[in-house]
Amino acid sequence: MESGRNLKLTIAYDGTAYNGWQVQPNGTTIQAQLENVAAKFSGVRRRLAGSGRTDAGVHAWGQVASWPYAGTLPGPRIQAAFNSLLPKDIVVRRVEDVSADFHARKSARAKTYLYIIDNGLVANPLLRNHAWHIRQPLDLNALRRAAEFLLGEHDFNSFKAADGETATSTRTLIQARWLKRGPYLMFFVKGNGFLKNMVRIMVGTLIDFGRGKYPPAQMADIIKAGERTAAGITAPARGLILRSVDY
Amino acid sequence: MESGRNLKLTIAYDGTAYNGWQVQPNGTTIQAQLENVAAKFSGVRRRLAGSGRTDAGVHAWGQVASWPYAGTLPGPRIQAAFNSLLPKDIVVRRVEDVSADFHARKSARAKTYLYIIDNGLVANPLLRNHAWHIRQPLDLNALRRAAEFLLGEHDFNSFKAADGETATSTRTLIQARWLKRGPYLMFFVKGNGFLKNMVRIMVGTLIDFGRGKYPPAQMADIIKAGERTAAGITAPARGLILRSVDY
Repeated sequence: MESGRNLKLTIAYDGTAYNGWQVQPNGTTIQAQLENVAAKFSGVRRRLAGSGRTDAGVHAWGQVASWPYAGTLPGPRIQAAFNSLLPKDIVVRRVEDVSADFHARKSARAKTYLYIIDNGLVANPLLRNHAWHIRQPLDLNALRRAAEFLLGEHDFNSFKAADGETATSTRTLIQARWLKRGPYLMFFVKGNGFLKNMVRIMVGTLIDFGRGKYPPAQMADIIKAGERTAAGITAPARGLILRSVDY
Repeated sequence: MESGRNLKLTIAYDGTAYNGWQVQPNGTTIQAQLENVAAKFSGVRRRLAGSGRTDAGVHAWGQVASWPYAGTLPGPRIQAAFNSLLPKDIVVRRVEDVSADFHARKSARAKTYLYIIDNGLVANPLLRNHAWHIRQPLDLNALRRAAEFLLGEHDFNSFKAADGETATSTRTLIQARWLKRGPYLMFFVKGNGFLKNMVRIMVGTLIDFGRGKYPPAQMADIIKAGERTAAGITAPARGLILRSVDY
């Protein structure tokens, strides 16, 4: 049995400069940055387990990781150590001691994502890395009505990247809500789990409804088809933010 | 007399990567980027006059520039030419034909700035270049009461950078308003003109009130002092956005 403590880290990051969450042979990743810093101040290199991967360019406000730590520093001191050593685009928001059986991925019960669309006539340059700019005005009502069909338990195979591997593609969505603030459209989606690229493919598909390409009820057919080709494009990574993970 | 048209450009930019608005011998500036692009598609190099300088790192949503143009392209085509050639952190939002006597700086009647403070316990990494992070909770009521003393016509010499040169330091403020949205404090300030660093020094001073260092009425004394040393620090450039210029 591993001696020491099990820590839950809540992490925010701007994913623009990174090759995604997960450690990779090439390119800098957020997980690698965190593990390097953790090794530096704890003196031991140990794997930090995230709640799930985020793609290159995807951001987070509430990513969660679990990390075995054998030291005696209290949580706030550990947080301060991380934040003084991390680059400014990664921030540890909270450090909590949790029970030994807590695992950031396996213990997760739900996740909430936010996708931001800049629907202004011209792109706001301050949001160029944090939103998808779509010049054509989208119909908020159509976006909302189409999104309602996503709620509940479905086989979401139509919204899974072709190379995504999972035993089952059935998931339950408990929120799929659009808000509009000025020219910005924000899609909040919460579910018990998400397939590879699922939120980005949902947004790329919903946009077709917002453009008036399909009537809202067509969303039911797209879900039923069960094939990636039935859905729309994969929305750009830059508009996506992992908001929170529930345990 | 100059032949051709006089154009009014409304420009948004993320100032993070630039050495400010104004053309300089060293470093890339926003004005230089715009003039280079304008020379490229118009075939003639001409000075583009901004409504005023913005410092290195300061942003804009509604900077205005006037530019003499001898060509025949309609406004929307000129806008498209700019935006296809400019880097993604500078966007031309509008191009309008204006009368020959319009000058972006001399014709300006008022300007509105926004300053964003991230007052969360940890900095939001998505806002690290667009807000000033202050961890200590600020008293919104104290910020608002102190700001009210800035309204109206005053000699704002206390809020002028030591090297700022102007005939008179008397200006009139017609708005000085704080809004709070979640952990974010937003200061909207509108006036008939601003001295060098004036908004940033005002914010640096207001923060002292938000921290409870002075009672709100002390702001009247700071204004009356008429000396830079009476005011607070100069807030960082990154939180400042030139919102609009009125003509």
